[in-house]
Amino acid sequence: MDHRGRLKKLQSVLERDSLDVLLVTHLPNVRYLCGFTGTSGVLAVCEDGNVFLTDGRYREQARAEVRGARVIIARKPPLAAAAEWLMENKVGRKKPRRLGIESEHLTVAGRTQLARLLRSELRLRETRGLVERARMVKDADEIACLRAAASLGASLFERALEVIRPGVKENEVAAEMEYAARRAGAEEMSFPTIIAAGKRSALPHGRASRAAIPSRGFVVCDFGVILSGYCSDRTRTVHVGRATGEARRMYEAVREAQAVAIETVRAGVSVGEVDHAARNALKNKGLARHFTHSTGHGVGLEIHEPPRIAAGQTEVLRPGMVITVEPGVYIAGSGGVRIEDMVVVTERGCEVLAPASKELITI
Amino acid sequence: MDHRGRLKKLQSVLERDSLDVLLVTHLPNVRYLCGFTGTSGVLAVCEDGNVFLTDGRYREQARAEVRGARVIIARKPPLAAAAEWLMENKVGRKKPRRLGIESEHLTVAGRTQLARLLRSELRLRETRGLVERARMVKDADEIACLRAAASLGASLFERALEVIRPGVKENEVAAEMEYAARRAGAEEMSFPTIIAAGKRSALPHGRASRAAIPSRGFVVCDFGVILSGYCSDRTRTVHVGRATGEARRMYEAVREAQAVAIETVRAGVSVGEVDHAARNALKNKGLARHFTHSTGHGVGLEIHEPPRIAAGQTEVLRPGMVITVEPGVYIAGSGGVRIEDMVVVTERGCEVLAPASKELITI
Repeated sequence: MDHRGRLKKLQSVLERDSLDVLLVTHLPNVRYLCGFTGTSGVLAVCEDGNVFLTDGRYREQARAEVRGARVIIARKPPLAAAAEWLMENKVGRKKPRRLGIESEHLTVAGRTQLARLLRSELRLRETRGLVERARMVKDADEIACLRAAASLGASLFERALEVIRPGVKENEVAAEMEYAARRAGAEEMSFPTIIAAGKRSALPHGRASRAAIPSRGFVVCDFGVILSGYCSDRTRTVHVGRATGEARRMYEAVREAQAVAIETVRAGVSVGEVDHAARNALKNKGLARHFTHSTGHGVGLEIHEPPRIAAGQTEVLRPGMVITVEPGVYIAGSGGVRIEDMVVVTERGCEVLAPASKELITI
Repeated sequence: MDHRGRLKKLQSVLERDSLDVLLVTHLPNVRYLCGFTGTSGVLAVCEDGNVFLTDGRYREQARAEVRGARVIIARKPPLAAAAEWLMENKVGRKKPRRLGIESEHLTVAGRTQLARLLRSELRLRETRGLVERARMVKDADEIACLRAAASLGASLFERALEVIRPGVKENEVAAEMEYAARRAGAEEMSFPTIIAAGKRSALPHGRASRAAIPSRGFVVCDFGVILSGYCSDRTRTVHVGRATGEARRMYEAVREAQAVAIETVRAGVSVGEVDHAARNALKNKGLARHFTHSTGHGVGLEIHEPPRIAAGQTEVLRPGMVITVEPGVYIAGSGGVRIEDMVVVTERGCEVLAPASKELITI
């Protein structure tokens, strides 16, 4: 990963925004910029040298992982240590004056503490998404990681198909998928596995429970892994027992909505247009009011990251963005269907990661 | 769980602090107070009726889970919806004036958004740990959950002992433990499983990697599950191959430090004293400088919650607190040892959850 290149690009953004220092506190942003994968650390990005502060638990790890920044092992928590370092060290030739904070991540208490420790030496400036904007467009190394994660993630559905049967508990299905993931080298799951069967399939976020799969109905499987730090996200819906005509129509409506939305994806199109394509396809089937969430989201070091593929969002797709496309239909008391893939935006369209047939599978 | 009782107690705290409303945004606090287990929601605690706001994805789930609060399904994100609700609804007989925010959890951007939406109708007051203070002392229902989680968690070590052998990869050990956890009904792991073998055992946070277990050295296993929402946390260290005299002394020093610290735990003792007991025991063996983290932490709905069992901390232990006691010694380039148990504080001492022999196991 080109950490030094990313830090350099960010420094030019800081110049543009007249910031002397950016205090990066959001750990996925820290990882993106300097490679640190631990759970405690702050990165100060400055014109004349970046500094990464962590605590004694990460002495070895920080030295092994961090690129493009000097590592300081502090006795205090990293935020307090960073404030102290800023007070003691002139950055460049002048003392830093304008300190950017990540307002979407730093807590109110963290800001209050910083302001107290820095007294009036530095003025805090609330920034939004400076690192996230860079992270939206993935470089070749990242796309390779996402491709590998998506491929491993997709393989788990094969295991699910072997296990899903009436009477088997949802969390037993999840157990088998997660075990297969670990055996295949996944670091962890990218979010709690969703296995929602029968009426529970109408819960868009129905985490695998102890409920048994009923003899008839949909089973929504939404699952993902983390591999080399990058997340996968995929949903497949199968039907246990014979599907009624109505169930089939519902499934086909979602499948078509997803296909139409994927066809819309290409550089230059706004994310709102992609959302509209999915929603409009369902509207034509009278199902739009049962599609109760947005169409997708960016995915990378985090399972949900910008852009949001939702109504009214104006972000324009660029080559290298990796997003999910995941329309769904949920009918309370009855059941639900969702189909999701990850796609890489290209100049002329998109590449579906780990493509596979999405015809209705009946078990 | 006595959600209504918890909400009532919190309301008397709000009165004491002259707050008309507390906006609870930290999800474990939301769950503690009203039972909602989803990933998006805000709870407004008010004298004359509590309101829980979430989005359409959680319509069914919120209605099934939430106790002690009226559920509102909003079209906007919950924080914005809460602000709107506060502007439109008089709480009690007067319009609310003093709105508490959870300053340790609400982001700077969230605060800015709230302040904008609320204009000057409500004055924001930064609160700290109002719900966490209540959560520190577990009630009988919670202790039952933690006991069950600790017991399930402890059983995973048996599986680890069957798998740990030279040449087996760390993440293969983690895979077997996590699979056993899921099969036994765990909802998920409470943190990424740490399996750190050989030189890697000197990393206090050495997440299971693809490294193979060497033919000789310590293997630190730190693992936990979530069961009914409550976390377990336990560490055992084993030795592969014959342990040198030095390795044995190191292990025994940690074992003694942990025993001494556990003996110190009882209602009325400060957490700093518990930390000091562990640190002092290691100091007597010349190992204190290799004990690079705090002695423990509270555990409950979150894997790390107050109090911190650390030097200089003055919180006094009370019956019903559940904390970890986990001293460790780490020698870079060589190896490390950590031993951890969860204990429930009682009037006269403490109860170790899932107690078991801690004699050195050689594989």
